[in-house]
Amino acid sequence: MFTLFVNAVYELEKRRSTRLPKTRLSRRKEDREARHQLVLDVALELIEERGLDHLSMHKLSKELGYTVGALYRYFPSKSALISSLQCQVLDVLKTSLEALMEDVADVCASEPSLIGITYLRGIITFYAEYTRHSSSHFYLNSRLLGDPKILVEEEDAGGVKERVQALMLLIGMAMMQAGVASEQQEALKKALIFWSGLHGVLQVQKIERYVPGGLDMVDLSKQFSQALLLGWGASPDDVVCADQYVKQLDERTPFELRADVKGVQREKRGE
Amino acid sequence: MFTLFVNAVYELEKRRSTRLPKTRLSRRKEDREARHQLVLDVALELIEERGLDHLSMHKLSKELGYTVGALYRYFPSKSALISSLQCQVLDVLKTSLEALMEDVADVCASEPSLIGITYLRGIITFYAEYTRHSSSHFYLNSRLLGDPKILVEEEDAGGVKERVQALMLLIGMAMMQAGVASEQQEALKKALIFWSGLHGVLQVQKIERYVPGGLDMVDLSKQFSQALLLGWGASPDDVVCADQYVKQLDERTPFELRADVKGVQREKRGE
Repeated sequence: MFTLFVNAVYELEKRRSTRLPKTRLSRRKEDREARHQLVLDVALELIEERGLDHLSMHKLSKELGYTVGALYRYFPSKSALISSLQCQVLDVLKTSLEALMEDVADVCASEPSLIGITYLRGIITFYAEYTRHSSSHFYLNSRLLGDPKILVEEEDAGGVKERVQALMLLIGMAMMQAGVASEQQEALKKALIFWSGLHGVLQVQKIERYVPGGLDMVDLSKQFSQALLLGWGASPDDVVCADQYVKQLDERTPFELRADVKGVQREKRGE
Repeated sequence: MFTLFVNAVYELEKRRSTRLPKTRLSRRKEDREARHQLVLDVALELIEERGLDHLSMHKLSKELGYTVGALYRYFPSKSALISSLQCQVLDVLKTSLEALMEDVADVCASEPSLIGITYLRGIITFYAEYTRHSSSHFYLNSRLLGDPKILVEEEDAGGVKERVQALMLLIGMAMMQAGVASEQQEALKKALIFWSGLHGVLQVQKIERYVPGGLDMVDLSKQFSQALLLGWGASPDDVVCADQYVKQLDERTPFELRADVKGVQREKRGE
């Protein structure tokens, strides 16, 4: 089942990278896409600097040197803009987690029964670094969960919804592979608990100054996931072995590099 | 150790309720306190309506019918105001959790070894209802954790810090009593994981619309805490028994009433 899933991911990737020959129309489309991307990049920068609530279409257009009307031609509403941004952040996260999955399948080649648990432990280490090295991305995911206000209107929510589900499926499949869930519904529920609980634990970074002696976020999130996995029936020995594999993953590509998603994107673009 | 702690809480409560006879000066002080409270109440209402980021000293003074200068006489800065608000929200939470503790000690009188685990399971049920019935309070606690921006400046953070630590101590003591932590540092760390992870899980309510079939928040948070407690070594039988006691607590005073903190406050004031 897990292999099936990996294959499906590959297929998707292949389809995406199949490019048509460039025509004038396709070049114009590319220009439009590049400007689209620029708007999203600047929006993310503004969010980084001043927070999501201070982002307005007015401020964004000023920052871009566009008229408000021109900006609305790219995004018909702030909700549509945030939805695109959120989709992009979730896509980048999914790409990183898929790359991690490939590496996990690789280091666990001689012990495939440990793929699931190693992957789950790897996600924890990844995410603790992601909080630090891609904080604006982590922040957007957190706000998606944590803010009682609806940031994305129903009509713009489709893309986000699809991506959240795909992410839960990815984690849920690992839960089944690790033997801590026996059917899909249970696996998805546990994936949701795992992901959201982890978000909560990592948010604690914020109150570090209230805790005597400070906090080790990697340690906290590891302890969190270890307790959850053991509580769901994982064997303590498997967790220990999985952590050895996670160390190998880190030696291959340090987690802080994996989690610096902007760095990864820059590298992909050959910058 | 747990009893010692309960006694300390009682002592504190007793000291607080010892009132001096009313003089003109103390009446004036009471007036000031009432106005102080009014400012906080209106600020919380504004946050409920429009979100924390839209709260400004300017808007608040307008809503109160004060000049901005008059408002600054009560709170020297927005940071000081939010700090006071946060302290109050944490105080109310602590009062509710202490009242719960007394009831737990009562229903577990014949099986005192289950006090800790029953309390921890009770906190989960309480918090799931608190998210729903006192959402602005839950929201402030969530933002305290979840927002990367510093909402409360260092010089105003003392009160919040003290209260977060007291809360962690309360939960940590229950961890030790439940036998899932053997020394204080470990207990405090586990309390932090428990509380912050729970916050993360409850934030998921927000993305309910992305999940086919919806979400049962009480069930999710119970599953979360059960896995954590089992993972930390609690006996499954004890958890089952504890949940029976939590049912008794609910029959005594429904959790949705306990968690409606404004209702509890109104009742206390005899409204």
